[in-house]
Amino acid sequence: MTIAVLSSLIRPMVEPHLPDSVEAHFYTSVAEMHELAPKAEIGWFDLEDQKPMIEAVKLAKNLKWLNSIYAGLDFLPLDLLHERGTKITNGIGINAIAIAEYVVMGMLNIAKDYRTIVRAQDRHEWLMDAPGKIELAGTRALLLGFGGIGKQVKPRLEGFGVEVVPVRRSGGDGALGPDEWRDKLGEFDWVILAVPATRETEGMIGAEEFAAMKETAVLVNVARGTVVDQPALINALQKKSIASAMLDVTTPEPLPSDHPLWGLENAHITMHLSGRAQNSMFRRSAERFVQNLQAYVAGGEIHPVFDPVLGY
Amino acid sequence: MTIAVLSSLIRPMVEPHLPDSVEAHFYTSVAEMHELAPKAEIGWFDLEDQKPMIEAVKLAKNLKWLNSIYAGLDFLPLDLLHERGTKITNGIGINAIAIAEYVVMGMLNIAKDYRTIVRAQDRHEWLMDAPGKIELAGTRALLLGFGGIGKQVKPRLEGFGVEVVPVRRSGGDGALGPDEWRDKLGEFDWVILAVPATRETEGMIGAEEFAAMKETAVLVNVARGTVVDQPALINALQKKSIASAMLDVTTPEPLPSDHPLWGLENAHITMHLSGRAQNSMFRRSAERFVQNLQAYVAGGEIHPVFDPVLGY
Repeated sequence: MTIAVLSSLIRPMVEPHLPDSVEAHFYTSVAEMHELAPKAEIGWFDLEDQKPMIEAVKLAKNLKWLNSIYAGLDFLPLDLLHERGTKITNGIGINAIAIAEYVVMGMLNIAKDYRTIVRAQDRHEWLMDAPGKIELAGTRALLLGFGGIGKQVKPRLEGFGVEVVPVRRSGGDGALGPDEWRDKLGEFDWVILAVPATRETEGMIGAEEFAAMKETAVLVNVARGTVVDQPALINALQKKSIASAMLDVTTPEPLPSDHPLWGLENAHITMHLSGRAQNSMFRRSAERFVQNLQAYVAGGEIHPVFDPVLGY
Repeated sequence: MTIAVLSSLIRPMVEPHLPDSVEAHFYTSVAEMHELAPKAEIGWFDLEDQKPMIEAVKLAKNLKWLNSIYAGLDFLPLDLLHERGTKITNGIGINAIAIAEYVVMGMLNIAKDYRTIVRAQDRHEWLMDAPGKIELAGTRALLLGFGGIGKQVKPRLEGFGVEVVPVRRSGGDGALGPDEWRDKLGEFDWVILAVPATRETEGMIGAEEFAAMKETAVLVNVARGTVVDQPALINALQKKSIASAMLDVTTPEPLPSDHPLWGLENAHITMHLSGRAQNSMFRRSAERFVQNLQAYVAGGEIHPVFDPVLGY
């Protein structure tokens, strides 16, 4: 028998579809998860809290397949998983629609300064002129990262008449290659970060990149806080060397209440909520897991595969 | 000579392109406008304030062509203009892009409850879960009014995977006819009002329509406050017989500070700012006027024509 250790939260969606050769154990607590982990061939250890997830992975010495609802798994002991040869499937693409909707919402809110409208309504005050007068139509966006999220962002922005230029490893086809985009930073109204968190992307936007951007440019980060050199970002926002930033991700998360980002009038913080802003992820994720489980026991391919060496 | 009475604000954009046969008089005050109005064959009398515009139209007894930057001209003495046979060109379509962007912004903000995120940032509080979890993808929108604004709204929403069903006089082609949409109100997640303000559309959404809508439905009004029976709307929002409303327009405007709409948590008031949220209207409007002026003196067609009898 193949032993799978799974959260009892997904039991109703998974149990009816279990292959005969799979023996599923459903945990209802962290302690139970840690107790069951060592015998798991298949494990799905997702929790809000990362520490006990890491611990479960360490304990799961027989793990051949680790599944997660999350897209970014950089917090896991990836070296260890690589060493053991554990296959990993992640949640890439599952919440991409919700995140893409957040990206456009954030851009529109910055363009129109919707925050000022919210505050005016709270004061029962009718504004006589629009606080923000930017039209998305006719603007240009650089889209760093053209994976699950980036591919959902592009058509949405194009519907607004935004010219979207993606950056992809191969370049071509209207896209820029990894060595081409820095020289062109000054040509974009929006710089959107949707890259995976890897050694390559860590701090990829720093003081030099902010200096190269337009003064009217807006940074949108739905990748990871670590992709941006945050002190350089705060400096750029304070000096207004860029116009503003929508930050779904920050370093650290949550931001402590005395962190300088909170109070910057041109920092729009969305608290890593973009991917959570949907009700379908859980269902979509369980459906994908069930399909993968059937493929796994039949010796077929599981997907999407997360490579612990590449980090995406 | 053809005498045109125009605001001095547009002088720099219009004067270099004046046909030889046109004598333009540029007013710098309301008094001057009223003094010049009687000899105007062509008049462009736009002001923030409607009363002196109405007065200018009344005084302009020789007016053959009235131009306006505004799309909705229901406040003018239309009977009088019709009687005189004055041709009218309006600003329809000129701010349609800006308004369409507001429509989508408003829908996203309601879907994700962005207002709660703004207030949380103001408190320096990191929210641990998304306050709004609606995805636009897969929802259905009824689009009442398929003119300049409606035609800009549709492709933007379709980029999000929203199914948009317009209502048009003729019906067909995926659209509903004027007698068909009421029976289907219960099938839509969004009801978007972008109709002109006419006798036909006044109060077209009232108690019966709200009762027919889904409890989760959202009303978006970028038409006129009078298109909605506002007491019925307030009642529907209070009882939550619909989920919420984005109101760019209200009755009256501005809303007095003690008006009940301000304090309703499910009323999102954008203070008739949608059309103002751009910097290009003035330029686009002057360009259109110059083109029309050249056509007018050559005996050609001017457009877009506003019909004072139909009211759009």
